[in-house]
Amino acid sequence: MDVDQVVAGVLAREPRAIARAISLVEDGDDGLPTLSAGVFPHTGAAATVGLTGAPGVGKSTIATALVRTARAVGRRVAVLAIDPTSPYTGGALLGDRVRMQEHATDPDVFIRSMATRGHLGGMALAAPEAVRILDAAGFDLVVVETVGVGQAEIDVAAATDTTLVVLAPGLGDAIQMAKAGILEVADVFVVNKADRDGAAEVQRELKQMLHLGAARPWEPPVLATAAADGAGIGELWNDIERHRAWLTSSGTLAADREAAVVQEVRALAGERLATSVAAQLAADGGLRAKLRDRALDPYAAADDLIRRLAPG
Amino acid sequence: MDVDQVVAGVLAREPRAIARAISLVEDGDDGLPTLSAGVFPHTGAAATVGLTGAPGVGKSTIATALVRTARAVGRRVAVLAIDPTSPYTGGALLGDRVRMQEHATDPDVFIRSMATRGHLGGMALAAPEAVRILDAAGFDLVVVETVGVGQAEIDVAAATDTTLVVLAPGLGDAIQMAKAGILEVADVFVVNKADRDGAAEVQRELKQMLHLGAARPWEPPVLATAAADGAGIGELWNDIERHRAWLTSSGTLAADREAAVVQEVRALAGERLATSVAAQLAADGGLRAKLRDRALDPYAAADDLIRRLAPG
Repeated sequence: MDVDQVVAGVLAREPRAIARAISLVEDGDDGLPTLSAGVFPHTGAAATVGLTGAPGVGKSTIATALVRTARAVGRRVAVLAIDPTSPYTGGALLGDRVRMQEHATDPDVFIRSMATRGHLGGMALAAPEAVRILDAAGFDLVVVETVGVGQAEIDVAAATDTTLVVLAPGLGDAIQMAKAGILEVADVFVVNKADRDGAAEVQRELKQMLHLGAARPWEPPVLATAAADGAGIGELWNDIERHRAWLTSSGTLAADREAAVVQEVRALAGERLATSVAAQLAADGGLRAKLRDRALDPYAAADDLIRRLAPG
Repeated sequence: MDVDQVVAGVLAREPRAIARAISLVEDGDDGLPTLSAGVFPHTGAAATVGLTGAPGVGKSTIATALVRTARAVGRRVAVLAIDPTSPYTGGALLGDRVRMQEHATDPDVFIRSMATRGHLGGMALAAPEAVRILDAAGFDLVVVETVGVGQAEIDVAAATDTTLVVLAPGLGDAIQMAKAGILEVADVFVVNKADRDGAAEVQRELKQMLHLGAARPWEPPVLATAAADGAGIGELWNDIERHRAWLTSSGTLAADREAAVVQEVRALAGERLATSVAAQLAADGGLRAKLRDRALDPYAAADDLIRRLAPG
């Protein structure tokens, strides 16, 4: 399947072509510019939802519950789990196969882990490319789930239209989340495992921290769920829809999306230029020796390489 | 204090100059190239230790315990806590002041949170710059502690000489850590809060996962600590020293450090070029309109901007 065939297959909503396209993103394939040019005109209709939070809070369970709700109301839905490759296992550890089984015969559900270490720009560049493929493939809802919770994961989740931040009793409390800068990206807070001890405290603590901040045009709700039983998922779905309606009516959606694509072009160009610079450095043993001997500092070395790239 | 004075003060080990230098890194100040050129020739002697793990496992407590041990054996020690700025609080939330009190009058201890959102390259570029300042200021040991646990935090911790991965019962289990790609960067595993239920299971689970991997030249030990009481910290210190001895004798230290600086030059150059590209894009409303209308995809836009940067 060449890249033009992959593009045609994605637009025709063929599962094999969609899977192949995501793999091209994963691998940082040379065909990505062609793929991107092919799908881009057909994007923009999907609602995108980011899902982040500490490991173990139940993000995958919430994603699965959202898939069920989406299908119940007739929406086509895709889940993209951003999953750094582990050298121990050579890829995604778990989840997909189990999660897929329930929807294995449903062509309107697509669930996929995506390793991002193969893509030079990492998850920051791989995720929006993969989301556009799913958007062009006609999914009404694309859920992007991160595995870790750090700066890169927060940026990826924040780049979606609606960002859900998930907490659970005992698993990275609200103060820890605030330290990591995660609270301010949330459009909706979800306190999952609400049937466990301490859930009410997490909700209370969270609401107190929100009160400390300045008033915002959208006040993020704080929901309680027990996603494994489906408790609270209807309310979560309604709040996602309510946030989307606000995004559209306030003009925030268009502004957010333009900011995201500008940021992405900046990062793409930087990554491509960094690759050229790295090739120069790899070929220049003398420059590497100067760095090793501390005769030239990293800024000066970067300047030197930039000058060679852009004469004048 | 101009940048030359800051450099002189850092080399003279003056706390005020060191603090000022870290602030310049934090802010992404224009003086960074001068600062970097000034300190770089005086670096390389410090041992660097990275500390990462899920929020709440007790990384700060372990860092504080390592400071006490370092002082007990007469080493100068610095702790750098990488702490993304929160708009809610305008900076680091906590910790520093409390932690500093114990060592407030000790000139051989330096503890500091560093916000990294002001630095365009984020923590990946801010952290190594700050570590070099502390290295040049004569600290024998520099501990780099991350707040979140994601791809960027793992990369920062992995860029130090010795990487500690901290777990605790109930806080992001070993399987979750494996999913996040964190296990393979560990030189030493620390199961903290070992006095709690489930600690033995975490150790067992971890050892089983390590057995699944291929044999490695350095087999990471799995330690149990209760850092709040100081339990296990002596053993941890010894394993850090043992790892350092192995790094040196095997030649791994020199190779790792060269790889890290090459990676840093690549990222620095990419970041500087991305800034030029972003300025072009900000000035070009027509190009932004094409992106918004989906007439030009992000790859094509990046190519266009790169061509303008490097004619020929």
